[in-house]
Amino acid sequence: MPTTDQPPLTAFALNCSLRGSGSDEKSSTDRMILDLLEAMRPHGITGEVERVADHDVKPGVLSDMGPGDAWPALRSRIIAADIFILGTPIWLGHPSSIAQRVLERLDAFLSEVDDRNRMPAVGKVALVAVVGNEDGAHATHAACFQALNDVGFTIPPNSGVYWVGEAMQGKNYVDLDKTPDAVASSLQTAASNTAHLARLLKRNEFPGTD
Amino acid sequence: MPTTDQPPLTAFALNCSLRGSGSDEKSSTDRMILDLLEAMRPHGITGEVERVADHDVKPGVLSDMGPGDAWPALRSRIIAADIFILGTPIWLGHPSSIAQRVLERLDAFLSEVDDRNRMPAVGKVALVAVVGNEDGAHATHAACFQALNDVGFTIPPNSGVYWVGEAMQGKNYVDLDKTPDAVASSLQTAASNTAHLARLLKRNEFPGTD
Amino acid sequence: MPTTDQPPLTAFALNCSLRGSGSDEKSSTDRMILDLLEAMRPHGITGEVERVADHDVKPGVLSDMGPGDAWPALRSRIIAADIFILGTPIWLGHPSSIAQRVLERLDAFLSEVDDRNRMPAVGKVALVAVVGNEDGAHATHAACFQALNDVGFTIPPNSGVYWVGEAMQGKNYVDLDKTPDAVASSLQTAASNTAHLARLLKRNEFPGTD
Amino acid sequence: MPTTDQPPLTAFALNCSLRGSGSDEKSSTDRMILDLLEAMRPHGITGEVERVADHDVKPGVLSDMGPGDAWPALRSRIIAADIFILGTPIWLGHPSSIAQRVLERLDAFLSEVDDRNRMPAVGKVALVAVVGNEDGAHATHAACFQALNDVGFTIPPNSGVYWVGEAMQGKNYVDLDKTPDAVASSLQTAASNTAHLARLLKRNEFPGTD
Repeated sequence: MPTTDQPPLTAFALNCSLRGSGSDEKSSTDRMILDLLEAMRPHGITGEVERVADHDVKPGVLSDMGPGDAWPALRSRIIAADIFILGTPIWLGHPSSIAQRVLERLDAFLSEVDDRNRMPAVGKVALVAVVGNEDGAHATHAACFQALNDVGFTIPPNSGVYWVGEAMQGKNYVDLDKTPDAVASSLQTAASNTAHLARLLKRNEFPGTD
Repeated sequence: MPTTDQPPLTAFALNCSLRGSGSDEKSSTDRMILDLLEAMRPHGITGEVERVADHDVKPGVLSDMGPGDAWPALRSRIIAADIFILGTPIWLGHPSSIAQRVLERLDAFLSEVDDRNRMPAVGKVALVAVVGNEDGAHATHAACFQALNDVGFTIPPNSGVYWVGEAMQGKNYVDLDKTPDAVASSLQTAASNTAHLARLLKRNEFPGTD
Repeated sequence: MPTTDQPPLTAFALNCSLRGSGSDEKSSTDRMILDLLEAMRPHGITGEVERVADHDVKPGVLSDMGPGDAWPALRSRIIAADIFILGTPIWLGHPSSIAQRVLERLDAFLSEVDDRNRMPAVGKVALVAVVGNEDGAHATHAACFQALNDVGFTIPPNSGVYWVGEAMQGKNYVDLDKTPDAVASSLQTAASNTAHLARLLKRNEFPGTD
Repeated sequence: MPTTDQPPLTAFALNCSLRGSGSDEKSSTDRMILDLLEAMRPHGITGEVERVADHDVKPGVLSDMGPGDAWPALRSRIIAADIFILGTPIWLGHPSSIAQRVLERLDAFLSEVDDRNRMPAVGKVALVAVVGNEDGAHATHAACFQALNDVGFTIPPNSGVYWVGEAMQGKNYVDLDKTPDAVASSLQTAASNTAHLARLLKRNEFPGTD
């Protein structure tokens, strides 16, 4: 049974769909993120999701690209949460251009170290939630994990969650009648591992280096 | 100052160079692994390295591929250690064929779960140490992190260590007069983060799922 | 000696730098593209470059995403040229978010086949020009070649041109005193192969399928 | 109707399955390669397949790694053919360790240029045939295309053929009742494009550079 008597944790998810939330089409990425947050709830994790396409995130590799840039507000919510969920659809086998933009903005963390050489993400846990109608989940996990690791996040075991359909069939996750058992089980594992790791890191800061 | 009063930790490194240790040429991958272990020592981590090319690791995706297979002995040393270091050269921008073979053998972990659905690597920390004479480190980290995450390892922040030279210049890490400052600093950070995370996970098991 | 008596060819290059051409900083990607076009000129290839960040290319996977979308104009220049050059910087080891956006827009080609099942790019040749201050060129080539192949381009031999500096050193291609010999030589080879292949394909259409 | 009155072409395929041909289990990679060769036949292409796991291909990056090395014989068949097919299963989202070994051995082409700076693969066409029970085809294409381009092959449009099943379902291509229509159609396109391009390049050599 999940550890609901544990101190609460917060998660912040960015949905990197190419479409804004006003779109007629439902977002498969959204459903995957919500399924993941649902699996996290019994572990005392409360989460929020934001659709990046709803915001004017400027291109660049600084934390603030100037007037009109929506990134600083999103960035501060990443900083405020214990857990970061990067949710992205797959396009041409890759993370979406919007996910790559998020990673580019996180690149600024590399130079934003504290007096113990710790980037702002050090001590936070990251997961990557991926959906596509076919193929590309593992490569998308790979690209995102490497970038998230580079900017200071800790990656819990089995934290790449995903669904893709059969090659060239065009089925969407959001249209499935129910969450496939294998996906549901992977979400449970990811949620449990994330809760455990995030709590440990919250109580026990990385010491950093001189 | 490093936390030498902490309980000791063990690391096991596989050097996935294409050449065996009997080769006349010195291994850049070996030097990178040794530099990393050196950076880990003040944190109470003692390590061992094995050159995979010295062993007859059979192709396959089971933990034991039968008579003559050297993998079971290497696997048991991964299991015995707190920290796993996957060290690989870059060939054509990718992890070496020997590194990919190691990942294929680790794939067996996916079905070797205990009664709490935990793979054998859950609770262990993994780092990826990469060298090449040019380009390919981040892609090699990406491929390895994704696979290691998939089979249950936890990835500490900034744990992809590497060196590559300028494009098409052919310089080798093993031939550098001294370890570049940027590399030395990254090894310190990786060592510190790894020690902290591995100790936390050793004292606090992932609970797994029903 | 280059084949200047051959019929002329045209190249169109997209520079996927995160910065617009009004930026104070010079673009390394721009220099690489110009060096490549310079190497192509003796082969009877004339080229144009456009900075994608100067245009409002909307997110999406259709050829026209509606009012204000700058993609249709860029797309028509890709269609009009014999050769397409995708030029991108490396960010976090990946093609830039703007390069990924270009690929997403090209994804529409998959369904825009003619009566012989040929996508609009079939018969055109593509090259990928990559720069970064360190690491990531081969992975960026890989991601782009796979996507460009998927949408119908033909890839000539040795057509991934690039420069990256030593790991974690921060040098920029645009700041080099001269083009390194190895880069210059690779540009010559890419230019020669591209000219030969593009001429062949221009005179000899892919027949397509029923 | 296919161009059977055209001069014949030859294809040589390497099946990079982890299992040798003596295995009890049928190879999905084998079936994909055979389906591709079948689609090529009406275009006047005759092909042969070899299972790499049946041969003792030594690790290394030279064309001959000494006594007992089976690579030189396989290499000479690549050299003799007009078309090279790299067929590989997906393991952990990547080309198999045996496919990576083949690429490492092809790396020797980089220094085996003729007096016009042409690598042995220049003028030859390459395809990549990939199967997995789930996910990883596009990433495998990407890694292989980039490497094959690097060593001199020309990549025809739409030449990454593949099949993968739904995420985490474990279905195998070799167990499908019939080749899915989408796969069959992609094989037709790849075969047609390959035949056209290989004939053009056979009659019209790349000129190389001084």
